[in-house]
Amino acid sequence: MKCRVCGEPAVISLKAYSTALCAPHFISFLEKRTLNTINKYRLIENGEKPIVAVSGGKDSLSVWFMLNKLGYAADGVYINLGIENYSDISFAKIEKMADLLMKKVYSFDIKRLSDKGIDGLAKILKRVPCSACGMIKRYVMNRVCIEYGYTTLVTGHNIDDEASALFGNVLYWKEEYLGKKNVVLEARHGHLSKKVKPFFLCSERDIAAYAILNNIDYIREECPFSVGAKTLIYKDMLNRLEQLSPGTKIQFVKGYLKSFIKNRQEDIKNTENFCSKCGYPTYGSICNMCRVLERLNIGEGHICFDEYDPSVLDTTERLMT
Amino acid sequence: MKCRVCGEPAVISLKAYSTALCAPHFISFLEKRTLNTINKYRLIENGEKPIVAVSGGKDSLSVWFMLNKLGYAADGVYINLGIENYSDISFAKIEKMADLLMKKVYSFDIKRLSDKGIDGLAKILKRVPCSACGMIKRYVMNRVCIEYGYTTLVTGHNIDDEASALFGNVLYWKEEYLGKKNVVLEARHGHLSKKVKPFFLCSERDIAAYAILNNIDYIREECPFSVGAKTLIYKDMLNRLEQLSPGTKIQFVKGYLKSFIKNRQEDIKNTENFCSKCGYPTYGSICNMCRVLERLNIGEGHICFDEYDPSVLDTTERLMT
Repeated sequence: MKCRVCGEPAVISLKAYSTALCAPHFISFLEKRTLNTINKYRLIENGEKPIVAVSGGKDSLSVWFMLNKLGYAADGVYINLGIENYSDISFAKIEKMADLLMKKVYSFDIKRLSDKGIDGLAKILKRVPCSACGMIKRYVMNRVCIEYGYTTLVTGHNIDDEASALFGNVLYWKEEYLGKKNVVLEARHGHLSKKVKPFFLCSERDIAAYAILNNIDYIREECPFSVGAKTLIYKDMLNRLEQLSPGTKIQFVKGYLKSFIKNRQEDIKNTENFCSKCGYPTYGSICNMCRVLERLNIGEGHICFDEYDPSVLDTTERLMT
Repeated sequence: MKCRVCGEPAVISLKAYSTALCAPHFISFLEKRTLNTINKYRLIENGEKPIVAVSGGKDSLSVWFMLNKLGYAADGVYINLGIENYSDISFAKIEKMADLLMKKVYSFDIKRLSDKGIDGLAKILKRVPCSACGMIKRYVMNRVCIEYGYTTLVTGHNIDDEASALFGNVLYWKEEYLGKKNVVLEARHGHLSKKVKPFFLCSERDIAAYAILNNIDYIREECPFSVGAKTLIYKDMLNRLEQLSPGTKIQFVKGYLKSFIKNRQEDIKNTENFCSKCGYPTYGSICNMCRVLERLNIGEGHICFDEYDPSVLDTTERLMT
């Protein structure tokens, strides 16, 4: 297997594109592809100030790394879910990347809410951990943008994430999610930041290869709560279809964007209100997060961030850590 | 496992309905369910004259049998595809059912077109067999309705057929099929009969059980050309999902009908013309079937039907056959 560009030994074959590439040409292929996605879908435009939601996994660390390499100066935001043997290791990887990029990280510790990790908090809230985590993440990630003046929240979602989530929504025709699901969600009303997914056409496998070839040190374990999630089953099915017909996942997601979003977006009525406490969009009068704060009997002040800023450490300190 | 209705030993468990039934109660369950479907979706209304497209398989023979049992006097129409060791066996099963129901069968022999079976004809037409077969079937089935005054063409499509076809259309967001796919397609312009699928909420497994419990003698082999078709892969995936969450297939199809059809049907522009030769709807000026006739250098007269009518045979003859 030889690199299609230079003829040197290839390190990766890309079946969906019927090609194979060596390490430098694969890296530049994925970066060009991502840059094209950013431009074509207007994910990050002139004058925008992006921030990357980082988990410590390959996708978010790679998109953070790549954006900065491509000239988009992007800081990071992290939510520490208080999961033993997972959250602290994740943050260590994030700090390491922050040092490399010389970029700030805002982190929110979920224990600020109830002294418990996501598992314990979910029990208090009588939700499953993934549901509580999703709700809190959406709120907190948005909040950091609004409070610190970031216009655009970047996530590392890849084609496997997008295709499997879409698959689940289509399987049950979840209209409320189907119409909303997009690769760029515009900012609204000054209360909701723009959200974008520059990797939405890149596969999990390609991103893992990119991370490894760039020596990005990421946490390999999946979140312990995601094990057995339906999403993983959907991913497995889509991978089987992809093997039979390379390119299926991309066609599925692109076809959806082209056909469904085009036809439906005007139909989706904006029935949102704004939370009477914090101003965040909600379907009721008070948003879910403010309800949680009420339930825990704590104020909005508990939603605050620690800042990790490698640029203020002097060189000696940076080399020592 | 006991019958939920009478407590006698059950012969089948229905996971999607969390129940188990004995033979008589299962038969009556499936018949009631089908009758509800017919009424709810207005598949066959007063004054309509239905005809069943029969292949000799469990689905079409069962729906033919059940409709007549439920009081819908329905004849049958069969297309002999000239497949060795398959087509003649299929027709023998159909004749047997026609005798039992005392109903007519119209049959069209594909060899009337070129002296060849579907395989040979497909080669002449430079199509794959399934594509040629689908086109000819749609045309001929419709034609028998128009010529002999049947208002409603009934097919035996079940939930597995519907879900897997929908799955394929969704996977590639085939808009042209997605918007059209429905359980009842209304008659149009006097050239296109109404088409209905009374079994669209019944599973393949339930129909097989119904056929067996009613001693319906059907051809067990699948069409030899369907082997390896993508549909079978989709069916397998949907069955895996169904095992994980019973009811998934029904939710998928019902959700589609509710959400997609409701929202999209008005969007689908009727861009159809009518064939200048035969009047059948087409997107061009001449329909595909008339093009085939041109290519084979034969006239419309080649599309004609043999009639098998058990009611004109006297009792002795019937008992002898």
